[in-house]
Amino acid sequence: MPALHWNRGVLTLLDQTKLPGEVTHITTDDYRVVAKAIKELQVRGAPAIGAAAAFGLVLAAKEIAPSAGEDFPGKLAEAAGFLKAQRPTAVNLFWAIDRMLSVAARFHSAPPDVIYAALEAEAVSIAAEDAAVNRRMGAHGAALIKDGATILTHCNAGQLATVDFGTALGVIRAAWQQGKKLHVYADETRPLLQGARLTTWELMQDNIPVTLITDNMAGYVMKEGLIDCVIVGADRIAANGDTANKIGTYSVAVLAKEHNIPFYVAAPLSTFDFALASGEQIPIEERSADEVTHIAGRRIAPAGVRVFNPAFDVTPHKYIAALITEKGIVYPPYVTNLQNFRV
Amino acid sequence: MPALHWNRGVLTLLDQTKLPGEVTHITTDDYRVVAKAIKELQVRGAPAIGAAAAFGLVLAAKEIAPSAGEDFPGKLAEAAGFLKAQRPTAVNLFWAIDRMLSVAARFHSAPPDVIYAALEAEAVSIAAEDAAVNRRMGAHGAALIKDGATILTHCNAGQLATVDFGTALGVIRAAWQQGKKLHVYADETRPLLQGARLTTWELMQDNIPVTLITDNMAGYVMKEGLIDCVIVGADRIAANGDTANKIGTYSVAVLAKEHNIPFYVAAPLSTFDFALASGEQIPIEERSADEVTHIAGRRIAPAGVRVFNPAFDVTPHKYIAALITEKGIVYPPYVTNLQNFRV
Repeated sequence: MPALHWNRGVLTLLDQTKLPGEVTHITTDDYRVVAKAIKELQVRGAPAIGAAAAFGLVLAAKEIAPSAGEDFPGKLAEAAGFLKAQRPTAVNLFWAIDRMLSVAARFHSAPPDVIYAALEAEAVSIAAEDAAVNRRMGAHGAALIKDGATILTHCNAGQLATVDFGTALGVIRAAWQQGKKLHVYADETRPLLQGARLTTWELMQDNIPVTLITDNMAGYVMKEGLIDCVIVGADRIAANGDTANKIGTYSVAVLAKEHNIPFYVAAPLSTFDFALASGEQIPIEERSADEVTHIAGRRIAPAGVRVFNPAFDVTPHKYIAALITEKGIVYPPYVTNLQNFRV
Repeated sequence: MPALHWNRGVLTLLDQTKLPGEVTHITTDDYRVVAKAIKELQVRGAPAIGAAAAFGLVLAAKEIAPSAGEDFPGKLAEAAGFLKAQRPTAVNLFWAIDRMLSVAARFHSAPPDVIYAALEAEAVSIAAEDAAVNRRMGAHGAALIKDGATILTHCNAGQLATVDFGTALGVIRAAWQQGKKLHVYADETRPLLQGARLTTWELMQDNIPVTLITDNMAGYVMKEGLIDCVIVGADRIAANGDTANKIGTYSVAVLAKEHNIPFYVAAPLSTFDFALASGEQIPIEERSADEVTHIAGRRIAPAGVRVFNPAFDVTPHKYIAALITEKGIVYPPYVTNLQNFRV
């Protein structure tokens, strides 16, 4: 089930906050609704956010163009800034919007319908490329997965986090499609339970064996010898390989190191931010306390309790055995070996 | 608010499954209700389970004695076995019941009312000793807590897990009562959220500053330099210091080691099982999948998903900087240094 779908000027988003209980969609031609869906995680996962934002900017252009006249670039930049402001950590959002703005700049003197067509074509390309990129990434990464492997993953870096196929789950899916026997352990991924709600659901739909655990069981299952490797996605990767991903990823990486289990990150090159020398420069989004104190609308902690709710953490490159990209697998030292991957 | 209270042949248990939303009690003179409360975690925490089980056996003796005649020892042993069978990991349950049975054996030829009085006195002693032991443990352990310290704890090893004052939280409470400034980070402790529901509630009642985090944030807060030490309780400690405690404790210990943060275990000597050479011999309870797939009665994962739900894990002694007991602080090597602490 795709996370997003574009048809004749209308964007349809699968509302991931309702899964797995309800399969409902948001259908809109308003970029503000797209922005809200990004902020509220109705669409989530770095590549899916990027594609959704690109279509959001197409919708903004359509709304702005007829009346803006010479103000068009300024108004479009304003809408772009609004879309970018929804989430700070995943770089694909900025990457996709900037790619769209450079198309708009190229066509700045064209009539509105030409600009709109060019922007729509670019957004469609971004989406189509993401699906293709994930399949290439899967083909490269599957080589790291042995027949019979048990794989731990954190959060959801699957079809639902991308336009299609997935990043971390794309690698698992590719290995599965090659006929390898696999078993996935899915961290539930508090606070928003993307592992419990989305990863299990997605893998069960493909009949890939999956066992759900709470985040704090990861160390135990590793110590019991149940895990052969870890694969996660990424929201932003710095030039040295430091990787921002869903909160808890860093803890899993430390645990993997302690148990000599390889820890892999699967991400398209659109997730790399070569402008950042290290992960220390990646901004970490802090989200509402309610995400921790309430589950499915029910309060589970005392009223008034102080909460810390960082949505991401950064895993230093020394914990990462390899980065899986659509151009191939990158091994340490990343600063050097990523040189050929700069886009 | 005490976890349990005994008055004139009636045991009152604070129903901890309902906290913090509702403060309700279970009042009973039936040992089967006590057994059910232990199994369902209405009373939980190794020392509290031990004391509750001791009173449970008093209730069993009262029920059995009038009609059992010469069968009394056999019937009492049966009730004892039933109480012991409720949970396998925490050793205090077995320790308390065995202590009660040895009193019963000593009085085996006495009339029923004398046996009952002796058993009641022993259970009252077990409870009173636990409260006293925790205060002594607190006094010893507080020396490890610096003024201004930020302390991470996992699960609830507080007043609610004991007869009074707490083990890990008893140490924190003692340091606080000495006037030290402290800040506690409480892991929420999935699946049953003892940290979110109980530890925060208990500390807030004492005005000790506490911040709630999800379990998977522990690594991040350590990496950010926010944690000075970790203190947890224990359900069973082997002769070499290996410690069984709530699932997730092991992950926290590994993370603490990676960040050079001291990891302390606070537990009364009744939690030590010197019959076990190492933690590998400690049985780990596996609990129902529903605890993971449902929160507050709401399903949060797909129907039919496979779940692994170990309730405890074992932290090898090499991760433990010190064991805090009522007789003092024990440092490695534990096999040697615990010799003087055998009871």
